[in-house]
Amino acid sequence: MDDKQMLMIPGPTPVPERVLQAIGKHPIGHRSGEFSTVMGEVTEGLKWLHQTQNDVLVLTTSGTGAMEAGIINFLSPGDRVLAGCNGKFGDRWAEVCDAYGLQTERITAEWGKPLDPEVFREKLEADTEKTIKAVIITHSETSTAVINDLETINRYVKAHGEALIMVDAVTSLGATSVPMDEWQLDVVGSGSQKGYMIPPGLGFVAVGPKAWEAYKTAKLPRYYLDLGKYQKAAAKNSNPFTPPVNLIFGLRSALEMMKAEGLESIFARHDRHRKATRAAFKAMGLPLLAADDVASPAVTAVAPVGVEAEQIRSILKKRFDIALAGGQDHLKGKIFRVGHLGFVSDRDILTAIGAIEAALQELNYDGLTPGAGLQAAAQTLKG
Amino acid sequence: MDDKQMLMIPGPTPVPERVLQAIGKHPIGHRSGEFSTVMGEVTEGLKWLHQTQNDVLVLTTSGTGAMEAGIINFLSPGDRVLAGCNGKFGDRWAEVCDAYGLQTERITAEWGKPLDPEVFREKLEADTEKTIKAVIITHSETSTAVINDLETINRYVKAHGEALIMVDAVTSLGATSVPMDEWQLDVVGSGSQKGYMIPPGLGFVAVGPKAWEAYKTAKLPRYYLDLGKYQKAAAKNSNPFTPPVNLIFGLRSALEMMKAEGLESIFARHDRHRKATRAAFKAMGLPLLAADDVASPAVTAVAPVGVEAEQIRSILKKRFDIALAGGQDHLKGKIFRVGHLGFVSDRDILTAIGAIEAALQELNYDGLTPGAGLQAAAQTLKG
Repeated sequence: MDDKQMLMIPGPTPVPERVLQAIGKHPIGHRSGEFSTVMGEVTEGLKWLHQTQNDVLVLTTSGTGAMEAGIINFLSPGDRVLAGCNGKFGDRWAEVCDAYGLQTERITAEWGKPLDPEVFREKLEADTEKTIKAVIITHSETSTAVINDLETINRYVKAHGEALIMVDAVTSLGATSVPMDEWQLDVVGSGSQKGYMIPPGLGFVAVGPKAWEAYKTAKLPRYYLDLGKYQKAAAKNSNPFTPPVNLIFGLRSALEMMKAEGLESIFARHDRHRKATRAAFKAMGLPLLAADDVASPAVTAVAPVGVEAEQIRSILKKRFDIALAGGQDHLKGKIFRVGHLGFVSDRDILTAIGAIEAALQELNYDGLTPGAGLQAAAQTLKG
Repeated sequence: MDDKQMLMIPGPTPVPERVLQAIGKHPIGHRSGEFSTVMGEVTEGLKWLHQTQNDVLVLTTSGTGAMEAGIINFLSPGDRVLAGCNGKFGDRWAEVCDAYGLQTERITAEWGKPLDPEVFREKLEADTEKTIKAVIITHSETSTAVINDLETINRYVKAHGEALIMVDAVTSLGATSVPMDEWQLDVVGSGSQKGYMIPPGLGFVAVGPKAWEAYKTAKLPRYYLDLGKYQKAAAKNSNPFTPPVNLIFGLRSALEMMKAEGLESIFARHDRHRKATRAAFKAMGLPLLAADDVASPAVTAVAPVGVEAEQIRSILKKRFDIALAGGQDHLKGKIFRVGHLGFVSDRDILTAIGAIEAALQELNYDGLTPGAGLQAAAQTLKG
């Protein structure tokens, strides 16, 4: 049905009505006092969400643009970096490093498996000359629904002492705790169409003091993505370049809603949805790509056997107007992914599971006990 | 009054209700078939607006990000470029060139005066070794309300044969004719919050065949701003990175409205508003910064004598909820600027002029003949 679509993909995520109404307002001048007030409020909210006193800068980019800014502002040509690669986004940050002539060492793991912190420990401990300038980690790897053990890897980075830790928190921020100050994260990048509950179009980069120190001597070229310009403008509640005023209206509304719900409640809700979704797929006899202890709170990847991932996606879309995500790169056609990130309620989980059960029935899927998925989800959601 | 603001600045410009409603819709997945259809329609509309068969690529950036992409994708470190500098934006593109280690030669003119095409001719004719790789021109210099003679300068670039012409069309596109194919422009950059009649958040770069040829050997580093990635995705009506779905819904609506009005009518309307605004200021005895023959169709800059520019702006804002722009950099406090770009009607021109007359009365401005400004505007609008 027209206008009936339900998003259960890991971005864009569903947007609350209040946020859409804010976005649909007439724009105002971005150099006005009124807009400075909005920027001030938004910046406070962003610091709250990042659990930090550091700068959180707002860019007109996708999450990729934000992460690129987070990398190139703090490094110089030829710098040695370790890039964690266990999915499409980890691979992408390594490609960014290559494009800028960094000496990129990829620490890989199979897609669907987590990065092994011990490999990072070994590399970092062996580096007595302190040639490693940065370690880049994708916290929640959206393409495989795996969450990497950032806390442990970061501990090894801290023990190294020289390297910066640069975190892709695109699908972890607002879904699970990313305590920037407590963990002393140097750079945290994210994007609006995820836990923020607003449409795509804004990128965010939080920058700690050690990264700003590195900025002073970093020589990779940049202008639009030069974070020093954003920091200078942000100190005056302003922007170096024209910001997307309407999306920032939406961001203000969304941050108000998040504050009203509270960080702990938001994280608990995502954890509940992760568990309920996984319980449902297990009850339906559909194999999950990631193991329980490394499962992302934002998205669940299913690798069906005896039934085609794309057939399930197709029925959900055509019959029930529910968008699920497919696999990316070599996982295309082999998995489907259910997003449960941002403005998602218990009802949405039941709805998606119910529709997937209906699709499995339609496909005469052998392993199915009718009603088992929904029952498992309901039970888990009840707690 | 709350929610009563009227934008008469050169961006963000007023947004039609239909466009706001499109922007305020629930987002859809950016990898869906529905969204590909939208991208296809939008791309056709963008080609129509640029009067071109070339690629017109959509970026999630401000106009500055689009222009940076337009420069860095086609050049290598040390390349010699001529940058036209007669205002804030011309200066900015020269700064971008400096940031990337290009050999930047600034061709300057006083702010408020146009670039002299003869200086470009001399430089280009003297370059028998063909070391000049690009000429960067700001078509309508928003900071001073001057339009540069792109057509003539471009003719000299064509006679040179080697250099690419890179055009900042941010406040000329959709206000006056920028016939990309007829003039064989190589790169044309623009931003959404201008003639496009949509809020900020989208940048556009149109790229011709000669620029794509240069792309093959260009060595400046880039990833998020790598236009090759956008070209490849655009061929499949897609995007390399998550696009701002909601703003693209708005763009589709705005392009439909522009097509319904027609290019010639749009240009005639902007020309009429330029003339009416200038006639009104002359009748009110307020000096204009730019001469008649180099006046931008998008914005008019006034350099008042005997009355403070900032006082006029302040009264318009506080008493009448009309936003005018101030001066930038060394023109701050010395000029004010009236935007008449995008979704602006004859009624808006009368409104702004009437309010400025009222402000001059309140300030006991000597030179004023009450009613003269409004009368001159009305007469000019009538034609």
